Amino acid sequence: MASSVLLSENFDLLYWITQLVGISSITMTGYWILMYRSGVAWSSQPDIQFNWHSLLMTIGLIYLYGNSILVYRGFRSIRKQSLKLTHAAIHALALVCAAIAQVAVYESKDNMTPPKPHMFTLHSWLGMAAMVLFGVQYLVGFVVYLFPGVRASWRSTLMPGHIFCGVLGFVLAIIAALGGFLEKAIFKIPNYASLPPEAVLVNLIGMVITIYGVLVVYLVTKPEYKRKALPEDMKPRNDD
Amino acid sequence: MASSVLLSENFDLLYWITQLVGISSITMTGYWILMYRSGVAWSSQPDIQFNWHSLLMTIGLIYLYGNSILVYRGFRSIRKQSLKLTHAAIHALALVCAAIAQVAVYESKDNMTPPKPHMFTLHSWLGMAAMVLFGVQYLVGFVVYLFPGVRASWRSTLMPGHIFCGVLGFVLAIIAALGGFLEKAIFKIPNYASLPPEAVLVNLIGMVITIYGVLVVYLVTKPEYKRKALPEDMKPRNDD
Repeated sequence: MASSVLLSENFDLLYWITQLVGISSITMTGYWILMYRSGVAWSSQPDIQFNWHSLLMTIGLIYLYGNSILVYRGFRSIRKQSLKLTHAAIHALALVCAAIAQVAVYESKDNMTPPKPHMFTLHSWLGMAAMVLFGVQYLVGFVVYLFPGVRASWRSTLMPGHIFCGVLGFVLAIIAALGGFLEKAIFKIPNYASLPPEAVLVNLIGMVITIYGVLVVYLVTKPEYKRKALPEDMKPRNDD
Repeated sequence: MASSVLLSENFDLLYWITQLVGISSITMTGYWILMYRSGVAWSSQPDIQFNWHSLLMTIGLIYLYGNSILVYRGFRSIRKQSLKLTHAAIHALALVCAAIAQVAVYESKDNMTPPKPHMFTLHSWLGMAAMVLFGVQYLVGFVVYLFPGVRASWRSTLMPGHIFCGVLGFVLAIIAALGGFLEKAIFKIPNYASLPPEAVLVNLIGMVITIYGVLVVYLVTKPEYKRKALPEDMKPRNDD
């Protein structure tokens, strides 16, 4: 019992550190865009429209995605059905952020003079893989776990795959984001090699995003932190 | 029983696919260096010496590292003590590859005209994090699991941390490698944006390394694939 209290306290502390780190990654990205990349705007200047891509991906596919998979363990005393809906809702919000972020980069590149080609770097390939996995996973998860009438046995059989693909999509998003910050620094900071303040900031954003990823994956995979079923989770209909 | 046979067959198939994918990543990296980057050599030409970095890191920190953590599940019928020594030996080989790869890049940059600065990109920061984690993990693992006389209770208490940090180091190495291939493509392929054959090859190497990483992590984390203790693992001394 003492050990389980200790674990739960560790979880709470790590959970809040994770939130702090995640919010820091967004704040630092916002600060970087504002101070060094002329802020954000839609369509007036392609270079500035591009900045929506970095900001919205960090908010959506990194911070919100991580929080969505953390929701079961972070709010363990809430009824399962409510957590499932919250999980789906945060993921939907992340998907909207990512979709707008994609439109931003496509429009921005098309409006440059001359227009810049799409999807040529390894970052873009990895990012597309993350997006496709995320989309397919959302669709399958929605049908299997939110449509009424799907057999409980199917749901539990597919659960390990749902969890693995979910964590994989999150890690792929982290990998793609790091590639994005790396290529942005190389393309846009002319004296990157001498590590001016902007370069240090961009590298630090990458390190903070990595730490956020490590913390989220630790919290969602440690068996001792798994949410235990509540009596009120049980209902006549199969919706676990 | 039928289900356990099926799982074991799935494991074997996935294990060999993983080997094929891992060896492909080395072969493709070798082919790329040979066909597009003038091969490898030590010290005569800095640019060519640099190529040892890409090749040895792919062999050491990606392929060998992955195989080292797979060894318990891949050779489950071999006695635990032998597997532990094999695990330590493959890791040592990976460490040697990584160390030579680091010397190659340091010497190569120092010998360029003008010399190039070290450790400025996000790739180098992430790579250094992976190397430090790998080194510390090796040292701690060596002391705790190979020195005789360490209490069995300590060994089992530290095991979840050893496994988490081991898999984390592997994923960090994958992330650093992808950043390395990305920045190399940007720095060295002048028309990267038009996706010439070399650019497609480098992007594909990145995707193949990613697939290798996903397969290794899947095989080493799936609970059903965990190695079961053998009767001959039991010995009077504590060395599990």
